[in-house]
Amino acid sequence: MSVGAVAWHGAGRRIHLQEVGPRDGLQMEPAFVPTAEKIALVDALSATGLPGIEVTAFVSPAAIPALRDAEVVMREIARRPGVLYTALVPNVRGAERAIESRADGLNLVMSASETHNLANLRMARAQSFASLAQVVATARGAGVVVNVSLSCAFGCPMEGDVAEAEVFGLVQRFADLGVGGITLCDTTGMAYPTQVARLVAAARARWPGMAFTLHFHNTRGMGLANVLAAIDAGADRFDASLGGLGGCPYAPGASGNVCSEEIVHALQLMGYDTGVDLSALVAAARRLPALIGHGIPSQIAQAGARLDLHPVPGDFEAIRARALAR
Amino acid sequence: MSVGAVAWHGAGRRIHLQEVGPRDGLQMEPAFVPTAEKIALVDALSATGLPGIEVTAFVSPAAIPALRDAEVVMREIARRPGVLYTALVPNVRGAERAIESRADGLNLVMSASETHNLANLRMARAQSFASLAQVVATARGAGVVVNVSLSCAFGCPMEGDVAEAEVFGLVQRFADLGVGGITLCDTTGMAYPTQVARLVAAARARWPGMAFTLHFHNTRGMGLANVLAAIDAGADRFDASLGGLGGCPYAPGASGNVCSEEIVHALQLMGYDTGVDLSALVAAARRLPALIGHGIPSQIAQAGARLDLHPVPGDFEAIRARALAR
Repeated sequence: MSVGAVAWHGAGRRIHLQEVGPRDGLQMEPAFVPTAEKIALVDALSATGLPGIEVTAFVSPAAIPALRDAEVVMREIARRPGVLYTALVPNVRGAERAIESRADGLNLVMSASETHNLANLRMARAQSFASLAQVVATARGAGVVVNVSLSCAFGCPMEGDVAEAEVFGLVQRFADLGVGGITLCDTTGMAYPTQVARLVAAARARWPGMAFTLHFHNTRGMGLANVLAAIDAGADRFDASLGGLGGCPYAPGASGNVCSEEIVHALQLMGYDTGVDLSALVAAARRLPALIGHGIPSQIAQAGARLDLHPVPGDFEAIRARALAR
Repeated sequence: MSVGAVAWHGAGRRIHLQEVGPRDGLQMEPAFVPTAEKIALVDALSATGLPGIEVTAFVSPAAIPALRDAEVVMREIARRPGVLYTALVPNVRGAERAIESRADGLNLVMSASETHNLANLRMARAQSFASLAQVVATARGAGVVVNVSLSCAFGCPMEGDVAEAEVFGLVQRFADLGVGGITLCDTTGMAYPTQVARLVAAARARWPGMAFTLHFHNTRGMGLANVLAAIDAGADRFDASLGGLGGCPYAPGASGNVCSEEIVHALQLMGYDTGVDLSALVAAARRLPALIGHGIPSQIAQAGARLDLHPVPGDFEAIRARALAR
């Protein structure tokens, strides 16, 4: 049996992480994070070397009050060259606000599951698609990059399995509109490595020019394994969330998005190049509890990196002397 | 690029899990779990199809009061044919107690790191080895199976990296004593997949007749990925702990052993055969908080299995009707 060199050693291969904590993480938080703190958080993330940050969402302030300061945040962050600053937008009005606030890219969302789309967005999928097609046209007119995130691409918490044909049918419709980026989202942590490897390989084979991003949740403990399975199948773009922020309303108490610093820590050890300064990322994660008023799922923020060593016990020399005297 | 069939699809391959929660998990708990509850826990685990359970430890009651009822537990559990009931023993006295209490197998522990062995066992490694050699002789005289767990095989929280030669030197010395089973323990969650694949492949190549078990902690979020890397390198025996019980004194707050139900859940989805009834295991895990008086890290106990579906919202038909009327 061969030791899978592809799966287990990165050999310097570049993996692009997009940080989604400021949007996907903070949108769930009950306490409003002050605007200046959000800007400082994005600026700290910019300094880590991350190639992309989903900064906020231009949604109705009534629907997501936590992000009601989207304009100010998007306008006042310090733009670092080489970093793509994107925003989630649900419709043309949101796209216009985001473009006016100088978002580099727009992230559009709909679900691959009809039930989830209705429950979450209150529209049938056909209605969402028609609405998003208008957003794509708006973005094109403004020369702004568009990515579409397909929720429930690996399963729906209400329907169960979602057929690959449902997912790929939507990918094709957005590809036909000229969309160049699709995120396959494991919205509620139902993806598993075998499935991920299969879906990613099939998607890449069918749309070789499409930039596919993978968005995993660690709800059932499979987040990192799914990232590695996706990489093995050729993926190199992932969403991740600082501190592991971002829950899932269908699994209260379970952890959320895959944690940026856990993914960077593991991939760096495995020889992948994320371009991210792990220490800076961990420092930013460790400031989150003060911002949001509660702990974070991040294991790395708690345990430190692999070689963050611990001192020997205070009485170590006495222990040694007693042992050797026996 | 090939999709790694070895790593990502089990094809029915058997993976043997040894449950260590009753020993490695409960030994850390501040509250004493009543003896009858421990027996009921082991009996519930026996009924899940697990091939092995580390039931308790025959150590000094002063050192680990949580397991001071080792004799009663080991004698009063219901022995299910096909399940190996083992106990941790630190020395000849412990081995005699375990054998007298009808343990099927003994698990011996020492560290691959000199500093960790001194700090944790208060002996130099040479002293531990000499002591364990006597235990091996005692076990052989009684016809009881012996396994040796080597702590810090993937790194020491005080020394940092532990050279493969240190680990393999100890494996060889125990092999020379006729020990047939070695557990490579990632005591504080320092292992990473590339390292695991390399060490496991090298160990299996050098000692093809040795039964190697892998013992991972999820301290830095790499537990499942390490299990998959080990499987890819040929390993098929793992320790895991119900609910993810079992912390690490060097990383307070971080999660402990890899969680039995998370590993079973993931491996079953990937086409491996663990022989374990996941529902029965999850049911046992969900009884743990009442036993130990606090929550457990298990993501599966919280979120349920992948296809444990959620109901649609109560007003779903109204949502749909409104959407379609647009």
